[in-house]
Amino acid sequence: MKIKGKHEHTIWVNENDNALIQVFDQRYLPHRVDIFDIRTTDEAAFAIKEMVVRGAPLIGVTAAYGMYLGCIEAKDKERPNLFLAEVATKLNDTRPTAVNLSWAVHKQLNALHKIKDPQEKIKVAFDMANQIKQDDINISKHIGKFGVEIIKQISEKKKGEPVNILTHCNAGWLATIDWGTALSPIYHAQKEGVPIHVWVDETRPRNQGANLTAFELGEQDVAHTLINDNTGGHLMQHGMVDMVIVGTDRTAGNGDVANKIGTYLKALAAHDNNIPFYVGLPSSTLDCSIMDGVKDIPIETRDENEVKYMQGKVDGEIKSILICPEATPALNYGFDVTPAKYITGLITERGICEASEKGIRSLFPEKYD
Amino acid sequence: MKIKGKHEHTIWVNENDNALIQVFDQRYLPHRVDIFDIRTTDEAAFAIKEMVVRGAPLIGVTAAYGMYLGCIEAKDKERPNLFLAEVATKLNDTRPTAVNLSWAVHKQLNALHKIKDPQEKIKVAFDMANQIKQDDINISKHIGKFGVEIIKQISEKKKGEPVNILTHCNAGWLATIDWGTALSPIYHAQKEGVPIHVWVDETRPRNQGANLTAFELGEQDVAHTLINDNTGGHLMQHGMVDMVIVGTDRTAGNGDVANKIGTYLKALAAHDNNIPFYVGLPSSTLDCSIMDGVKDIPIETRDENEVKYMQGKVDGEIKSILICPEATPALNYGFDVTPAKYITGLITERGICEASEKGIRSLFPEKYD
Repeated sequence: MKIKGKHEHTIWVNENDNALIQVFDQRYLPHRVDIFDIRTTDEAAFAIKEMVVRGAPLIGVTAAYGMYLGCIEAKDKERPNLFLAEVATKLNDTRPTAVNLSWAVHKQLNALHKIKDPQEKIKVAFDMANQIKQDDINISKHIGKFGVEIIKQISEKKKGEPVNILTHCNAGWLATIDWGTALSPIYHAQKEGVPIHVWVDETRPRNQGANLTAFELGEQDVAHTLINDNTGGHLMQHGMVDMVIVGTDRTAGNGDVANKIGTYLKALAAHDNNIPFYVGLPSSTLDCSIMDGVKDIPIETRDENEVKYMQGKVDGEIKSILICPEATPALNYGFDVTPAKYITGLITERGICEASEKGIRSLFPEKYD
Repeated sequence: MKIKGKHEHTIWVNENDNALIQVFDQRYLPHRVDIFDIRTTDEAAFAIKEMVVRGAPLIGVTAAYGMYLGCIEAKDKERPNLFLAEVATKLNDTRPTAVNLSWAVHKQLNALHKIKDPQEKIKVAFDMANQIKQDDINISKHIGKFGVEIIKQISEKKKGEPVNILTHCNAGWLATIDWGTALSPIYHAQKEGVPIHVWVDETRPRNQGANLTAFELGEQDVAHTLINDNTGGHLMQHGMVDMVIVGTDRTAGNGDVANKIGTYLKALAAHDNNIPFYVGLPSSTLDCSIMDGVKDIPIETRDENEVKYMQGKVDGEIKSILICPEATPALNYGFDVTPAKYITGLITERGICEASEKGIRSLFPEKYD
């Protein structure tokens, strides 16, 4: 996807220095397009924890490169595998909900623990991280190709009017490497000339919709309108939404979907108004060790100041404003879980399935092993 | 209710000048407690339109005083009744959803149009505005007395644990003259020593929850926690909410309730989790000329900049920050309508009834005449 007309990825290896990983600093978008350097495992952990990068797939790829940087740091250590295990723990502990994080870290650990030669370790980890990144791009593309068929079906009934798609948070290319998960079908629809319009939930408290989704849809020239998180229900009641697509940070084996806080409310409204509600997901977000998502997916609690303060641009600078009395206590859950019964279908890299054990098994039987 | 320990009303006649109406300027709360002067009908209209005052009952009372100021302005006019009709239109046109506005304006018009003497007109209008104000205080008190019984019933099952009550927007004393509608039962529970804790939805885009409800609960020492509008569903799923109480700007004759945008989403979540969902309302918000609220209650569309910018305090000043790309289009509906089937009951000044024609008729048969 593009920023200012130039095709970009969200994360890359510096072309002159293999030990320097670079990412777009998503903390300051859309007001500033900064690049953030990751040279150490501490910087990789910081980038994930502080949401320099975010989005389950991108978190996974960043963690994979973090393990690669761990191999570089491990090369002079007496017990390199112990050190790598510590790096894995450090990366894993940054954020609890997105399962891609531990998936990528363990994929690296499994590949690395039998390799003795430090240089060979570094090479294997580097290739693995690059592979995970390339796989993610392909996965996003496939999600788009399957998902666009749903949009095209709806479009046929709209007689040239745009298909109105509501999305929550950012599951676009900025949450992945390229294309996105929830937004990939939208970009594919644009490519195929299907008229579309996207309702962008601002997604409090961190405003990934207002900051990131509005930004990336704008850069890609996709028609869109920003709304408050409160607005979607009213739009759905009044025929202004044809479908909902969201991403996910973890999908349980029973089809329950953890995604950005507020997703559940939109699923309820879609259900109440007979509007299809889809989840775009790479299979790396499937966690079939959990069979009751609502009960068992761990939900991250973040700093209350994300609720009490809001970041934006004023007088040409990026600042945080206090939006409540200073003494007010606040609570900040990062995610909620949408029960499978409210989900029309899961759009995966292998096709579309029902949000249920049966549905997921039909495409990913190996996930239940 | 209190600000800094002193008992206050939201609107009052200046003690030295009967022609000066004063209100707390709710645009700058909680960061600044300013008083706003209303001396003219233009200033009354401005105060309502720009949300210096807000909340259906307070809007009604402000409009009633606006009509009184209209009588003062009319006294030198050639055709005072025509002038007053124009004032009525000006006030009515400020905001379309709250029905108390036109209710109060017409109550004044009906009383005034037969009176010829200008001084008599002024006196009648002044008395009427004062009466509407006093009635509103009594109504709020009664809503509290009926509503607190529901809280006490829930409290009995909680074994000393606080009753967790979620509210959306501000339907507290700042939305009325004193006590509030949705919050009046909460203040009565506090008075009676029932342990309570309030979840305060921040209520984007204008943050009446974060700015006003958090402020007034803090000033009254009621335990509360601020949350994003996205969070309530998750709390309800996990047993952290015992009941929901909200206010309303207009309730249709079939029990459908128009309230701040996002209310509908909370009602859906309450329904999905078997949590009682109550609406506190003065009968002045009943509009039985409408029998299908979802279809027929007019919904205000406000400036898109309320979505794109957010106001708060930074560096000791109140400022607005841009929270999305400058070019992003936004849409800003002020209200949504919750279908009656999702409402457990209406708490009115005459008691609690079902949200249905039958229920409302049992308490307010005259409203269907």
